[in-house]
Amino acid sequence: MSDAPSAAEEIMDGVYSALRAHGYADLTMQDIADECSKSKSLLHYHYDTKEDLLVAFLDYVVTDSEERIAARADDPPVERLVQFVGWFVFAPDEADREAFHIALLELRTQGPFNERIREQLARSDRLLRGTVADILGDGIDAGVFRDVDAEETAALLVATLDGARTRQITLAGAGRDDDAAGYTREVAEATLRRIVGPLLADGVELPPLDESIDALRGDADPDESVDDDGAAGRSTDPGE
Amino acid sequence: MSDAPSAAEEIMDGVYSALRAHGYADLTMQDIADECSKSKSLLHYHYDTKEDLLVAFLDYVVTDSEERIAARADDPPVERLVQFVGWFVFAPDEADREAFHIALLELRTQGPFNERIREQLARSDRLLRGTVADILGDGIDAGVFRDVDAEETAALLVATLDGARTRQITLAGAGRDDDAAGYTREVAEATLRRIVGPLLADGVELPPLDESIDALRGDADPDESVDDDGAAGRSTDPGE
Repeated sequence: MSDAPSAAEEIMDGVYSALRAHGYADLTMQDIADECSKSKSLLHYHYDTKEDLLVAFLDYVVTDSEERIAARADDPPVERLVQFVGWFVFAPDEADREAFHIALLELRTQGPFNERIREQLARSDRLLRGTVADILGDGIDAGVFRDVDAEETAALLVATLDGARTRQITLAGAGRDDDAAGYTREVAEATLRRIVGPLLADGVELPPLDESIDALRGDADPDESVDDDGAAGRSTDPGE
Repeated sequence: MSDAPSAAEEIMDGVYSALRAHGYADLTMQDIADECSKSKSLLHYHYDTKEDLLVAFLDYVVTDSEERIAARADDPPVERLVQFVGWFVFAPDEADREAFHIALLELRTQGPFNERIREQLARSDRLLRGTVADILGDGIDAGVFRDVDAEETAALLVATLDGARTRQITLAGAGRDDDAAGYTREVAEATLRRIVGPLLADGVELPPLDESIDALRGDADPDESVDDDGAAGRSTDPGE
């Protein structure tokens, strides 16, 4: 709880920056060391292998997501659901965030071949689906959602938002495709109208998507957002 | 239209097999040559670089999808829509198909950095979204679908099915996660109930998903399915 980031946090920021700059496939321990101004031998002191470090990074990203979700647990269920949808929306100028998610998508393709990576992906999947199911359960109890199948709805919503993100980041390149740049927003809006809307009890309305987009991104623990150049941004994503 | 596959078709089969066996990142021209029993120099005679060959392969996969979709264009719109959803469902024993899609996902992560790959991905995206929009338009004209926003629904459906596939193939590994193995089926069923169901005009019913799952996979041009060992399987997928 000190103001200065710990060595582990600085290293995680370095992984985040290195993934954005170099992608996953060609990433070296030296790239990461350069990004966090540590020596390669110090990295190896903490993490035996690059795999160890990347697994620790995934663990860090998922834990951060858990904390962001927990921090919003007392918001009204309808708002939490729109916040969750908005979390996946990319603004048009978020090239850095897209680059990070491309690297993360490369890392995800290692899931079938690497049990430790797959365990983190499965943990993230349980977190994301469990969050939606919890929100729906709370909302059903509160009378703001109809009595829907929360597990099915959660699987549907998480797949939809993940798919929109994957399509946006893979289709958008240097010669940027306008359609692709708006993929996550278009699908988020359709999700609210077509999947979430019919769940609402009579008289309940959704808050505007724009007001909710930054909710899970903007309110990091202040200790985590000291770094202006993207260290806070590192952990603003549903990271699987 | 001869019975014997052309050299180009044999090479494309080789790329398909090599991607399944080796993945994308470490794939070599020699791996592909080995899989199609051609010499590496013959491959280089047809394709200057590995990139040229992979772009040609993506072109081949998207063209095959176009042909499969066109072959079903006279089916009733409601059946075509369920066929489209079923196309993305993995049966529990389709490890080869999952391996192919993992390699394809790796290839998709190159989209932002490679304009020729990105062009093929964008072409596939237009095909998939355009297909759903066409089906909905035909069904609205025929009075079997309500008057919905076809473009919005298409973006939503394609994102949802792509996301389910990505989650299934990245979460399922050697130590297979039962939840993950059923991801595409669970989401396909939810899609039909929650997104497609509300589009139906009064009295219109959906055919069972199981009857439609093989529609876009099983009826390849007979000339294309001579090869029992997976050459037909190569082209059974919505390939982006």
